[in-house]
Parts: sequence; C-alpha cells; structure tokens
Amino acid sequence: MILDKINAPADVKKLSVNDMKSLAEEIREALFNRLTKIGGHFGPNFGFVEATIALHYVFDSPTDKFVFDVSHQSYTHKILTGRKAGYIDDSRFSEDSGYSNPGESQHDFFNIGHTSTSVALALGLAKGRDILGRSENIVAVIGDGSLSGGEAMEALNVAGSELGSNFIVIVNDNEQAIAENHGGIYQNLKDLRESNGQAQNNWFRAFGLDYVYEENGNDIAALINVFEKVKDSKHPVVVHIHTQKGKGYRLAEENREAWHWCLPFDRATGKPTLDFGSGESYTSITSRYILDKARNDKDFIVVTPAMPMSVGLGIEERAQLGRQYIDTGIAEEAAVAIASGIATNGAKPLVVTNMTFLQRAYDQISQDVCINKAPITMLMNYTAFDGLTDVTHLGIFGLAAFTNIPDLVVLCPSSAEEYVNMLDWSIDQREYPVLILIPGNAVAHRAADMSFGNINQYKVEQLGEKVAIVALGDFFQKGEEAAAAIEKELGFKPTLINPRFASGLDKELLNSLKSGHSLVVTLEDGIVDGGFGEKIASFYGTSDMKVVNLGLEKKFYDRYNPQQLLESLGITADKIVERVKRFI
Amino acid sequence: MILDKINAPADVKKLSVNDMKSLAEEIREALFNRLTKIGGHFGPNFGFVEATIALHYVFDSPTDKFVFDVSHQSYTHKILTGRKAGYIDDSRFSEDSGYSNPGESQHDFFNIGHTSTSVALALGLAKGRDILGRSENIVAVIGDGSLSGGEAMEALNVAGSELGSNFIVIVNDNEQAIAENHGGIYQNLKDLRESNGQAQNNWFRAFGLDYVYEENGNDIAALINVFEKVKDSKHPVVVHIHTQKGKGYRLAEENREAWHWCLPFDRATGKPTLDFGSGESYTSITSRYILDKARNDKDFIVVTPAMPMSVGLGIEERAQLGRQYIDTGIAEEAAVAIASGIATNGAKPLVVTNMTFLQRAYDQISQDVCINKAPITMLMNYTAFDGLTDVTHLGIFGLAAFTNIPDLVVLCPSSAEEYVNMLDWSIDQREYPVLILIPGNAVAHRAADMSFGNINQYKVEQLGEKVAIVALGDFFQKGEEAAAAIEKELGFKPTLINPRFASGLDKELLNSLKSGHSLVVTLEDGIVDGGFGEKIASFYGTSDMKVVNLGLEKKFYDRYNPQQLLESLGITADKIVERVKRFI
Repeated sequence: MILDKINAPADVKKLSVNDMKSLAEEIREALFNRLTKIGGHFGPNFGFVEATIALHYVFDSPTDKFVFDVSHQSYTHKILTGRKAGYIDDSRFSEDSGYSNPGESQHDFFNIGHTSTSVALALGLAKGRDILGRSENIVAVIGDGSLSGGEAMEALNVAGSELGSNFIVIVNDNEQAIAENHGGIYQNLKDLRESNGQAQNNWFRAFGLDYVYEENGNDIAALINVFEKVKDSKHPVVVHIHTQKGKGYRLAEENREAWHWCLPFDRATGKPTLDFGSGESYTSITSRYILDKARNDKDFIVVTPAMPMSVGLGIEERAQLGRQYIDTGIAEEAAVAIASGIATNGAKPLVVTNMTFLQRAYDQISQDVCINKAPITMLMNYTAFDGLTDVTHLGIFGLAAFTNIPDLVVLCPSSAEEYVNMLDWSIDQREYPVLILIPGNAVAHRAADMSFGNINQYKVEQLGEKVAIVALGDFFQKGEEAAAAIEKELGFKPTLINPRFASGLDKELLNSLKSGHSLVVTLEDGIVDGGFGEKIASFYGTSDMKVVNLGLEKKFYDRYNPQQLLESLGITADKIVERVKRFI
Repeated sequence: MILDKINAPADVKKLSVNDMKSLAEEIREALFNRLTKIGGHFGPNFGFVEATIALHYVFDSPTDKFVFDVSHQSYTHKILTGRKAGYIDDSRFSEDSGYSNPGESQHDFFNIGHTSTSVALALGLAKGRDILGRSENIVAVIGDGSLSGGEAMEALNVAGSELGSNFIVIVNDNEQAIAENHGGIYQNLKDLRESNGQAQNNWFRAFGLDYVYEENGNDIAALINVFEKVKDSKHPVVVHIHTQKGKGYRLAEENREAWHWCLPFDRATGKPTLDFGSGESYTSITSRYILDKARNDKDFIVVTPAMPMSVGLGIEERAQLGRQYIDTGIAEEAAVAIASGIATNGAKPLVVTNMTFLQRAYDQISQDVCINKAPITMLMNYTAFDGLTDVTHLGIFGLAAFTNIPDLVVLCPSSAEEYVNMLDWSIDQREYPVLILIPGNAVAHRAADMSFGNINQYKVEQLGEKVAIVALGDFFQKGEEAAAAIEKELGFKPTLINPRFASGLDKELLNSLKSGHSLVVTLEDGIVDGGFGEKIASFYGTSDMKVVNLGLEKKFYDRYNPQQLLESLGITADKIVERVKRFI
C-alpha cells in the first residue's frame, strides 16, 4: 500500500506518476470505507482525487495555501495531510469533520461550509501575503456550482484588477453542482469545454483574469503539467479543469444529483443501509403541498437558490412544476430579490432553502422585500437545533437574525395542521412578507385555525394558573410535556401558549397573564440572544412577572449531541419543573 | 416652457426630438433648482436626463416597468411622471424622496436605496409577468458602479439562462461610480467603449445575454433608436450606453467624485452654502487615525467596499495609504471575506463603510469571519438614529443585526478618547472579530482606559443608588443628562454605566447592582428588539430588578424629525425622570 507511507504532502512528492495513480485508487478505497459506513459528500470527493494529489505534488502546503470552496471536496486533502485515520480506521471517523478545519490541521485555514466563499477568502490570504512581503502561492479551489454565488463573482472581479500578484483559482468543472446547474455562465463553461478553452466571450478573461484550460481533470500527469505552469505566476489566473463527478463508482457517475451526498450505503447495490421508514415527515407534507398548490393556483411559483431537495422537490417533482419553478443556482440574494419582483407584479412566490443559507440574503430581505412589503413567503428547512449539527450549517440563528427585521412576519408552526394552514394563508395574502420555519421534530397533529391575519395573536392551548409556558414552534411539544409534568409534580395546571408568531408580541394576552400568573417560561428552538423570549422579558421588565427564557446559547456549537445539549440547557420537562418550583 | 405641459409620460410622446432636447435643458434647470437648495445626488441625475426622456418616449410606463438601481438617478423619471413640483416649487421639495418610491407614484415599483438590486428585482417583475401571461416590457437601469455587487451579477447570470423572454438591462456607463471604479470588469467596459461594443470577451455575452452598445448616451435621437430596437424583444438583452456623469455643469463633469452627491451649493462657484464649520468630528478623528496607523504599522490595511468617504478618506488620503488600501468596488461580501483572509494570513485589516451596508455581508461576518475567529476590525459610520433618515439608509438596525452573532465583539464608544483606544486595541489584538460603531453625536471628551481585552466588562462612570442607567455608545451622553436630571429632580444620585460592549453582559456587575438598586434603565441608539437592552431584561427576568429598555421601535422610519422621534419614545432627560419616579 502506497497510502501506508503517506503521512504528509512531502511523501506525495516522492512518488512517480504511476505510484500516484495507484495512490488515487487506494484513496478511493479509503473514501468508500468512510462513506459506506457514515455517509458524507460523495460526488465532489470522488471527482477531485487526482487533482488533489497533483496539487500537493506541485505546491508546498502549508506554506503554499489551499482554500477549498464549501470544502466538501477536501477529503483527499485531509487524507494527504495527516488525517487518513479518519478514513481508514473506523474507530477514528469522528476525528475528521466533513469540511476543512484549522482545528484539525495546519494545512487548513478556514472552517468552510457555505458556498462561493473560497475566492474571496483566498484573495485575502494573497493580499495579506503581499502586505507582509512574502511570496507563497495562494490557491482557491471552486466548483462550477459555486460560481453563481455573488460572493464568488465579487471576488473574481476584485482579483481581476486589485491584486496584480500570485493568485490561482482552480475551477473544478464537473458539469454539475447539486441539482442541475442553472445560470448563463454554465453555457459559457460548456462552450469553453467544447472548444478546449478557446471559446469567445470567456467569462473569466472578461473579469481581467488570465485563463488556462485543462480537459483531462482526472489525469494526474496532465494536472501536474498545468499546475506547474501556473505555479509562482505573478498575476491572477484561472485554471479551468474538467473533472468527472463521482469518478470511480458507476452509480455515482451516472446519477450525479443523487450521489452528491450520501447516507451510509451498500457498495454493491448503492442502497442506503439506514432505514428512515416511509412514514409521514414535514418534508413529504411540504412537497405534496407544493405540488397540489401549483396545480390549483397558476399564479403560484417556487423559487429556490439550488436547494429544491430542502423541501423534497426531486427531479420528478420539478418536472411536474414546470414553469412554476425557478432555480436561480446558488444565489440566495437574487432568489429573494426575484421573489420580491414576482410578488410585486402580482404572482405568488414561495422561496425554499435551508435556514442557514437564508442569512446570505439578509440585506435583500430587509431592503428588497420588507421595506417594500412584498408579500413573498420564505420557507426554511433545517431550522432546528437537532437538524444539521456542523458549525457551518446550524439553523439555530434564524430567529435571532430575522425576527428583528421590521414588517417581516415570522411563523413557527407547532403541528402539521397549523403548518399547512400557515402556508395556505401566507401564499395567498397580499400584505406581508412571511418567513415560515419548518418544524424539526416528528410530525405532530392538532386542530388548527386560519387566524393568521390577526398578526401576533398567540393561541392559548390550555388556560391554567400561576405559570404560563410560551412554547414556540417545534418546541411546543416540549412545552406540553413541561405543562403535564408541572401538573403531575406540583399539583396545579399551568397555562400553555402556542405563540405561532415569533416576530411580535401579543400584548393583550401577555397583559392578561399578569392576573393569576407570576411566572412566564419561554421556550424556543434557537439562541436566546436576540430571539423570541427576550422580547417577552423586556415587555414584562417593569411588572412583577418573573420571566425565564429557555433556548440555546449564543455560540457556534459544532457536532454536538442534541439531547445532551438540551439537558445541559435545562430544556427538559424535569428541569423545567425544578425551575418553576423555585418561583411558586 | 415645454416642461409646463409635461404631466405624464404620454406628454413626452407628443414631442419632437428638438422639443425633447429643449426639455432636457429645462429639466436640468429644475434639477439645479432643487439641488442648489437642498442637495442630493448630482452626477447620476445630470448624466441620465436624455436617457430617461428617451425611455419614456419609447416605452409605456407604468404598463412597461422601469426599475432604477440605487434609484439615485431617477429624478428625471420623477419629473416626467407627475412629480415635477418637487423640483420646481421650493415649497414642495419634501413631497419627493431622493429615491424611487411607490408611495409617490404608480410609475415606481420599489423603494430602492442600496445598490445592485435592480436587475434581480426587475427580473422578478419579468418572471411574474410571464407567470401571469402578460407581455409588458421590463427595464432595469443599472450604473456601472453597481455592477460589481454580487446581487447584480447573480441576477445577470440567472437572466442569461432562466427567463427566455422580454427583459432589458440598461447599463448606464458613466465611467465612475462614487469614487473611482474598482474591479476587472471596468477594463472590460472600457474595452467595449473603445471598440464600439466589439471587444473580445464581452462580459455580458459571457452571461448568455444579448448585447447592444450605444456610444452616444446623451443623444436623445440615438437613444430612441436603440431603445426601439430592443423594445418587445423576446430574450434578455443588455443595452450598454455611454453617458457623461454630471453633464451640463462643468464643475461636475470635471470632478465626478466630488459631485456624485452634493450639499446645497452656489451655482456660480460650486461652493456649499451650508457651513458645517471646520471643528472636530468623528470623521476627521478617524481619517487622521487611519493615516497615522498606516504610517506606523506596515501590516495595517484599510479595506472598503467603495465607501472611503465614510471615514473621510478622500483622493489625497487614499494616495497616502498606497498599498495599505484596497477598494473592492461595491462588494460588501467580498470586502468582509477578503479582510478575513488578510487577518488569517497575519496582517491587520480595517473594513470601513456605512452601517446600513454592512448587513449585505451578514453571512460573511458569521461564516467567513466569526466561525473562524478572524481578528478583523469593522468600523461603521452613520450608525445613529439622526444620521441618514431615508428608510433605505437607516443605521438603527445594526445592533440588532450584529450583537447576536457569536464571537463578534461589538464596541460602542462614548467619547473620542475611548473611540481611539478601541481602535488601537482592536486592530492590534489577534483573538476577536470586532465591530466598532462610530458615534453619531458631537465629539465628547472623557478619559478612557485600554481594558477592552476584558471582554464584556462594563465601566461604572458614577456609582450611585436606587437606579442604574446603562447608556450605550453615543447615547451615553443622554444617560449623563438623565442622571443629572434625576439627581436634581428626585434628590438622589443614580448609578451611571458605560457598557462599551454591546454584544455581551457584564454579569458580575449586573448581579452587584441587585443590592442598592431596584431599577435599571437601558439606553441604546438603535431598535430595542434584538438589541442590547433586551439582553439585560432577560438577565434580570427572575430577579426583583425592574428594567426599562429605551431605544427605537422595530420599524422602517422614513425621513423623520430625529428630535421629535426621541420625544415620542421618551428618550429625553425629563421623560426618563418621569418614568423613574413611578418606580422609586
């Protein structure tokens, strides 16, 4: 085994091209070992094995610096930089995150999980190098799918004129991001591929960048040759390489969308080895809802920045939606602004993506949407503390980010019935921009009404005494559990409130609680700072009402155990009973 | 006067080309009337008079729809669409905002003040039109300077492939945004101008857009000709027109940066007619600080997304900074991410712009900077409630937006000495990302220390009893006034605290206040929702301490009287005394 002897990039430099080809196959076996057992990003990594070996052969990491976009193609880089145990030793999988991570290795410079950031971050490294008078190579690796993001294009534009020194951008063109690519530049990339880099109107050259094309992006010798040509170059240059996504696994080569990311799977059949059952989920409810709505209302249109799967819109569902569907590519800012225009011209847009990505459109939500009161609906998945637990993909900051933008109605459903009613109300109304958080817990059922036009009207689900529990969205069930535990342990029935609206106060109801209650406990699935509960604490600031705000801390949690986290934060029925006891 | 007869676009359509030329001159006189007396955007409007007339001659507004980027070039559009009184009748200036405004006219579709949004908003109008089965023309007008913003590029990319129907983007190329343009595409625009649109590597065509060039962007007949060619086109097309910024006023033609925007001025000399005095200001302190720091520390570098004037860096100061200055063009996302890279590679970046624009980099601050704890300093101007009062430029949302991002240290100085110390500490330390809000009030002086390394340590400026006033940043002086009034009116000396840190709690100090105090009053220059004071209310939620949070409401205020607003919110010494009385 050649991989046995590879503990650092220096070991790669000793290899012949043939050895490196063998190494590539051994690395694919290591990738299979990890991915069949714990899942992860498949296609991006399998396609970038040869290029990573060639990069480490030609450049001198960590003096020369690599920045991987999204960093979901950095597994081979990890294997070559002292972290192979996380791939070949099953007991050590957890040592490696799925993304680049300076905490793991001096060969990584940033924790990266969002797209389109690598060019700007690397350009900053280059500018820092220039200021400090050094001369290392700076290399950004960006996939074709990430090029559509504004941050990437801004940085290409800056690189084209403001640097004038060494800066190398590897465009890893595998003809596909996650779903199929969208955007005019993909035709340009195709033209460049088909003309061996000679096509007119070269998008990269238009930015003022030098440009080199390499067709054989999985051929180590060819890659070494092209990387050696640009090494130590004194002007920003794009190296456009054509790679095969999922290379080395027939199923992944043939179905690139399905194999962008994988669950643990059986190598022979490609079938997942985890069974999630085929039961009801908020995702299945959502995709069904969207297809029904589109059939029944021709003014309805789904807008997504390349995340149709966040609401279960696979290839088939997208085909059914037809012209009632627009994918902007990875471009959250444009997606939200386009939705504003669609609504302003009279149609009914629904923007769908994951919570963590919506903050990329913060200014557009404020300026393009809310100042203009454009009645768009934004529907977010992975909003919950126990959804995605990588530090770069947390949904727990959404309430703090978006409940403080004026005129934005933020809705947190607590049951399937309420969720569907909120969608119905929001998509059809013409007055408010609305953000709906898809619950992260198991599907709950409870009768719900359609009274959302009464903005900020909370719902009293149980009228009791002494203590009022105000439990938001997918933490409503925790409120129910706590209320039951209080009744059982403390012998009285507390009031239980489903606020539904996270972005404002039901002042009338909150005032009415002052009689008969001395404690309000708020529960929210997000950080407390800047979120829902603090608004209630401030409201009661001058009254005798005591307020406990329960939620997460303002902190970048990373790969945690969700249940342990809840325990430590006191968000369990037992711990809530204990707290309440102190005040009653 | 031809203008006398122009009350709607239909009146323009009756004119001959010669009449339209005369109308252009009359409109310039109307612009002079308003701008010499109340100031506003000069260069963009003087350069776009002919093009606006031609647009209204060729297209049928409001059925055909115009969306103006930044909308600071829409004055002529306003004059032609029933709002000329705001230009020719001095008593009616206030009827017209400085930006497009649907509240004023059915010919406007959005309130717009931030850059780079027009293409996406208009693309949304086009998509909405298609969904509803209509066929009007949709026209976005974007200046060259706005093209560097990610949102604009994202939308050009989407337009290039996802629409396939009528969509017209007018690129108003006046060779200059605000300061000189930065970015590789400006060379491309220059190449296109110099080749009459024939240059290789056409950036717009690379996006998949059709393209037409018109050199004579101030020639009404030529413009009518080119607009008629693209009217009713069935595929997205860019019309690149070359205009003269500031046309019709020699001083503005010669100094385009100085005349982008103007204060009231004397037409003969170009000198401002308002005297702001030459006294000390936070802007002058800042520019002096930056130049000194750059001289003394070669690792220090200023990064700005095209807003050097926000900290008083004029042409001369920028020349002095030399390589210690990088302007990314209007590109906030890239600016912040580049700063992260610069800091990560060991140098010391200071990002400068206006508060309202920083929210365009919300995700970059979270992901590229804070998750990576990159020690950058971000320095914001126009943070105060009485800075910019247009709804699109408010600084009052900054605290709510940024104090809830983990690991970001938000500093609010209360005096010149403290401000400079904060800059010194922040730029040199290597542990924290820091955001500093430049005070909006008159320069205050008070001795300050350098203890900012003790994160979240507040400063007790006066130890008193019963009531503690926690007054943040440029509202500290209001706290001082309130404390003095309480002592005078109520006969006891309250405690006065300068928290300095807006992003966290000094729990030890807050706990200590529980003895001897029964009321805490917080004062902040921003909305209360999600801001500083609510964190304190939540902290005291289960104690007997009463808390009053004073600040602005979560609301899109527009062109208000700042002092009246403070009165209505109870943020005056008198009103605070009244409130305190109720609790003592």
